[in-house]
Amino acid sequence: MSVLQNDLFLRVLQGEDTARAPMWFMRQAGRYLPEYRALKEKHSFWQMARTPELAAEVTLQPVRRYAIDAAILFQDIMTPLPPMGVDIEFNPGPVIGTPIRTLAQIEALRVPEIDEITPFVGEAIRLIRSDCRVPLIGFGGAPLTLATYLIEGSGSKDYAQFRRFLRAEPHAAHALLEKLTEVSIRYLTMQVRAGAQAIQLFDSWAGLHDIPMYEAFSKPYNKRIFEALRPLGVPLLYLAVDCTHLYPTLGDLPCDAISIDWRTPIHVARAQLGHGKVIQGNLDPAALLGPPDSIRRAASVVLRSGLGGPHVFNLGHGMLLHTPPDHVTALVDTVLAFDRRAEHRSD
Amino acid sequence: MSVLQNDLFLRVLQGEDTARAPMWFMRQAGRYLPEYRALKEKHSFWQMARTPELAAEVTLQPVRRYAIDAAILFQDIMTPLPPMGVDIEFNPGPVIGTPIRTLAQIEALRVPEIDEITPFVGEAIRLIRSDCRVPLIGFGGAPLTLATYLIEGSGSKDYAQFRRFLRAEPHAAHALLEKLTEVSIRYLTMQVRAGAQAIQLFDSWAGLHDIPMYEAFSKPYNKRIFEALRPLGVPLLYLAVDCTHLYPTLGDLPCDAISIDWRTPIHVARAQLGHGKVIQGNLDPAALLGPPDSIRRAASVVLRSGLGGPHVFNLGHGMLLHTPPDHVTALVDTVLAFDRRAEHRSD
Repeated sequence: MSVLQNDLFLRVLQGEDTARAPMWFMRQAGRYLPEYRALKEKHSFWQMARTPELAAEVTLQPVRRYAIDAAILFQDIMTPLPPMGVDIEFNPGPVIGTPIRTLAQIEALRVPEIDEITPFVGEAIRLIRSDCRVPLIGFGGAPLTLATYLIEGSGSKDYAQFRRFLRAEPHAAHALLEKLTEVSIRYLTMQVRAGAQAIQLFDSWAGLHDIPMYEAFSKPYNKRIFEALRPLGVPLLYLAVDCTHLYPTLGDLPCDAISIDWRTPIHVARAQLGHGKVIQGNLDPAALLGPPDSIRRAASVVLRSGLGGPHVFNLGHGMLLHTPPDHVTALVDTVLAFDRRAEHRSD
Repeated sequence: MSVLQNDLFLRVLQGEDTARAPMWFMRQAGRYLPEYRALKEKHSFWQMARTPELAAEVTLQPVRRYAIDAAILFQDIMTPLPPMGVDIEFNPGPVIGTPIRTLAQIEALRVPEIDEITPFVGEAIRLIRSDCRVPLIGFGGAPLTLATYLIEGSGSKDYAQFRRFLRAEPHAAHALLEKLTEVSIRYLTMQVRAGAQAIQLFDSWAGLHDIPMYEAFSKPYNKRIFEALRPLGVPLLYLAVDCTHLYPTLGDLPCDAISIDWRTPIHVARAQLGHGKVIQGNLDPAALLGPPDSIRRAASVVLRSGLGGPHVFNLGHGMLLHTPPDHVTALVDTVLAFDRRAEHRSD
């Protein structure tokens, strides 16, 4: 557990003003990489996620290929749900065997002990840490986002079943969110004990809701998770996609960093989120599909927008399937060459 | 053409301060209504859209059932594209036979004369006008949103092909947007000449893009369409879904009203869009899936947020499939009972 050679990511999250922005990329491990596709041909998603050696290998693939400053555990936000008694397959998005639609189903969900949730995740983390030169980020889904899939049953254009459930069965919805919060606290605590050096909470579907709904059904649960993890001493990050309208309420979440999507320039988001937060983001992942010159220009805009406060460079959402791996190299080189002390923000 | 009994919608769009907010609902004609499903069992979407009597009947169904203040033509934003040479089916969303991915394909697209685009639409409008007690809204898709489908080929989670195309082939993208702009001007002009009393431009996918991309690929074309339609003398509305981050640039579009989604309270949106625009919206369509009491409460919040400026009550996006028709009645009654002169905004 002592091979860490680059702690830039952790130092920025601890408030240090560094000459360079650390970088990692959401979904940096995945199907756009030929070395990932080679493994995926032989194994299903659950086989890779549940075999510590394979999960560790996939986690480390982008770290070997690119000069990035953090690794992120290869798992899905759904990983802790099967131990609760939920049947989940991927096709390719998550599909729930029996969607949760009644209070009786919610009451039947188990809240496993910390050591029995997903032992394979702890083992994968220990393997990664023994071989990783950069910090390892653990992660989980925010309760609202996990509930979105559990109730809807699969990906959806409008998540109407879920949005109906919140309004027609608020008592049951809160009962489900309570259980998911407790499981998330145990699952993420286990990750930190196993060696995860930061935790990111993915609230991918928070943006479906307006501020009153978000404050009723998401924020209090995220807050409890962050407060429970805080004593563990690792930096805490929150992801909000498609949440420009929620910025006024996200600034006082008790986390260290907020990861924003590409829709809003960083300095604009920072003005609304408050200056107490590290901002992570926010290159449009589609920028990586354009020619390298346009990638360099787009990355420079993001880097300049990130000046004036602590910034972790990232994409505004996950890497897209058809991203050419050498385009990512052009991006990495641009971020490496950008000296925050020599540049001035150009709004 | 002289049966109009209720012009509240038109008066508000002309700047009149009325005691009640006019209302209509996006996708007010459609599958949530049993009388629509009865027709849909016997006819495909294209049969209904292309048979003037059926298109008129579907347009009028919600006007007969509810005390709403406007009708909207039953068509799809894809309607004017087959005359350009594009093969489109619905399954149930639009599927393009051969997605547009090359400049040669774009150059081969036809720009039909105004009278040959879709004569059945003009005929449907004339039939509706002969039997409609409220104003009829015509509509079309904004060029960027039409191009999104033409290039992607179908609905998509991330529209990566389209976002790649804008960056990799900007010259071809602009050539396509030019043609779509010209066809849209002709198509919408035809609608007004046939009797449409207002025009709404649906830019459903504008929110995928940040401000610089929106200003490069959407705004100039929307502007040209509105400027071309302005001399026709009908009110012009623009729909922006998931566009909170675009509000700073939408305020100077040369239209009369902007329709916003449910994510942002109306008075907050109005402050960013400027007070020169009528705001249309913005009840979360999912609110209609909850119990009637919660619908009345949610509608009252929207109605109060709309005070302090001209407001057309609507949903923040299209009616959802499982909306119970009697819930819509509860909503209509709430809007009818709300006296804008007796109420005060409660932020």
